[in-house]
Amino acid sequence: MKEYRLGIDLGGTGFQIGLVDSDFRIVAHADAPTRQHELSFEEVVANIAEECKKLLSANGLTPADVSCIGIGTPGCVDSDGLLRFAGNFSWHNVPLKAEMEKQLNVPVRIGNDANCAIIGETLAGAAKGRKNVLLLTLGTGVGGGLVINNKLFTGGHGMGAELGHVPFITGGVHCTCGIDGCFEAYASVTALIRMTKEAMAAHPESTMHAHAAANDGKVNGKTVYDCAHDGDPAALSVTAQYTENIAAGIGGFVNVFRPEIVLIGGGISAQGDYLLDPINEKLPKYCFAPNAVPYPKVVAATLGNAAGIIGAACMDIME
Amino acid sequence: MKEYRLGIDLGGTGFQIGLVDSDFRIVAHADAPTRQHELSFEEVVANIAEECKKLLSANGLTPADVSCIGIGTPGCVDSDGLLRFAGNFSWHNVPLKAEMEKQLNVPVRIGNDANCAIIGETLAGAAKGRKNVLLLTLGTGVGGGLVINNKLFTGGHGMGAELGHVPFITGGVHCTCGIDGCFEAYASVTALIRMTKEAMAAHPESTMHAHAAANDGKVNGKTVYDCAHDGDPAALSVTAQYTENIAAGIGGFVNVFRPEIVLIGGGISAQGDYLLDPINEKLPKYCFAPNAVPYPKVVAATLGNAAGIIGAACMDIME
Repeated sequence: MKEYRLGIDLGGTGFQIGLVDSDFRIVAHADAPTRQHELSFEEVVANIAEECKKLLSANGLTPADVSCIGIGTPGCVDSDGLLRFAGNFSWHNVPLKAEMEKQLNVPVRIGNDANCAIIGETLAGAAKGRKNVLLLTLGTGVGGGLVINNKLFTGGHGMGAELGHVPFITGGVHCTCGIDGCFEAYASVTALIRMTKEAMAAHPESTMHAHAAANDGKVNGKTVYDCAHDGDPAALSVTAQYTENIAAGIGGFVNVFRPEIVLIGGGISAQGDYLLDPINEKLPKYCFAPNAVPYPKVVAATLGNAAGIIGAACMDIME
Repeated sequence: MKEYRLGIDLGGTGFQIGLVDSDFRIVAHADAPTRQHELSFEEVVANIAEECKKLLSANGLTPADVSCIGIGTPGCVDSDGLLRFAGNFSWHNVPLKAEMEKQLNVPVRIGNDANCAIIGETLAGAAKGRKNVLLLTLGTGVGGGLVINNKLFTGGHGMGAELGHVPFITGGVHCTCGIDGCFEAYASVTALIRMTKEAMAAHPESTMHAHAAANDGKVNGKTVYDCAHDGDPAALSVTAQYTENIAAGIGGFVNVFRPEIVLIGGGISAQGDYLLDPINEKLPKYCFAPNAVPYPKVVAATLGNAAGIIGAACMDIME
């Protein structure tokens, strides 16, 4: 058994590489800009491969010396390692796995970045030791990942688990994916900002106006939470609706997947219990037979960006 | 390899037993009333076991001569064979597997009846040869089952796949499960009947009134379809909304599970292409990245009640 694995977290702006040891710790790290708009797809992959070789070499290793090399990427990745579609990239149907293998001359695994994050959290983070785990990453969109019976769940042909794109209020708010009424359109931070702006328009007396003015006029995910902490009624009404939305969405996933624990990732999870307590309080009413079948606790993910790197490196463990 | 399996489809009113051969055909059959309100749980199970032994004996077999005995039941069944909760039974947390094993002296498998139906349809029916299958049974409620990568998907601890109880219009129509706005409350035949009655109240000119009057004043799932076939505008509006609901719900499941084919079961599937064509037409707009990722065809389940018996008998194949 080789002692190290290599994980790559590929983003639209930059990529990060981590050398991961057998205790699932990142022992060496590198990052660089992705430059997807200046370079061809092949050149981007060649750059990433070059950085991987440099990091390995600095630690006295070659690609053949690690037991798994994995790339986590946004978007839809199929079981052949084709990156079908990713909102953050201009690429469509690019052979990410094949191109990286050409560069490194060893097998490479490709996975969705949210799926990598849940592998990381399950091996080394907030869900350590659990067999059935749901992760929802709330940010610009809603990412998601599932571990069921100690295996990553990705659906048919590895193309499923788009947990942001399920009905929430069918026919409701238009989602960036083109569907009206997705969960993402009610539970992402983008949705929270929309709800904040709507509440500000309806409540000229709200402290959110002064808060936003002090932030160069910008409303972000913190605006409403800062003002809710201070007792602003309009802000409290928004945070109450937002946690209701998250609880209702989680309830649907509980009824289908029955995770033992639910993790919330993304910057918003820094709100801690102030975000999580109302979600946990509201969750039972969205769970099927809550008196007969146990429902999970909702907690914050703990590894942050490291989860995606660790999970990308360890995709072999949860296959 | 033993040639036969035995499947039991347990319902609130009656139960059916089938002896299933290695080509997944029912070669002998028995049925009897469940009598759950007259008898104790143990007596009901003893009766079923007795009928099983009689059917086997009539075919020159004993319980030890078949390779799998399975019971499909409504409700939540956990991986230990405990029937936690079933709307159709007064029982809670009864050890169905253990009690049946006590009676028959051989191992017995227990599964949710919708899960058994999809195993049957995948082995011998409309999804024969497919690896990733979604079945939605539309009736009083919405039952569901999933086969993913040739295995029955049941979620953590075998307690998931409650596909009727996911958000559809969160906070909307109250569902029998207690949650407001479940898919079941918009896609079951019960929902179709509610929508029919609402349309009748709003449209005194609709032919649905005469149709219902000719049926002892009763509105059922056929009322609106019969009148839609005849061109009644109010009826056509209801069937259009109903197929929109089904398509939207299926879209959410496609984005999470990526089945290769979707089956519709239940009496309503007798409407055939008149039901299915609009669902197939509307489905792409509810699928994530429909131009990049293939979406499945929606077809009618073909085995009817036999699917549940065959699937109960063959649970060992898709574990």
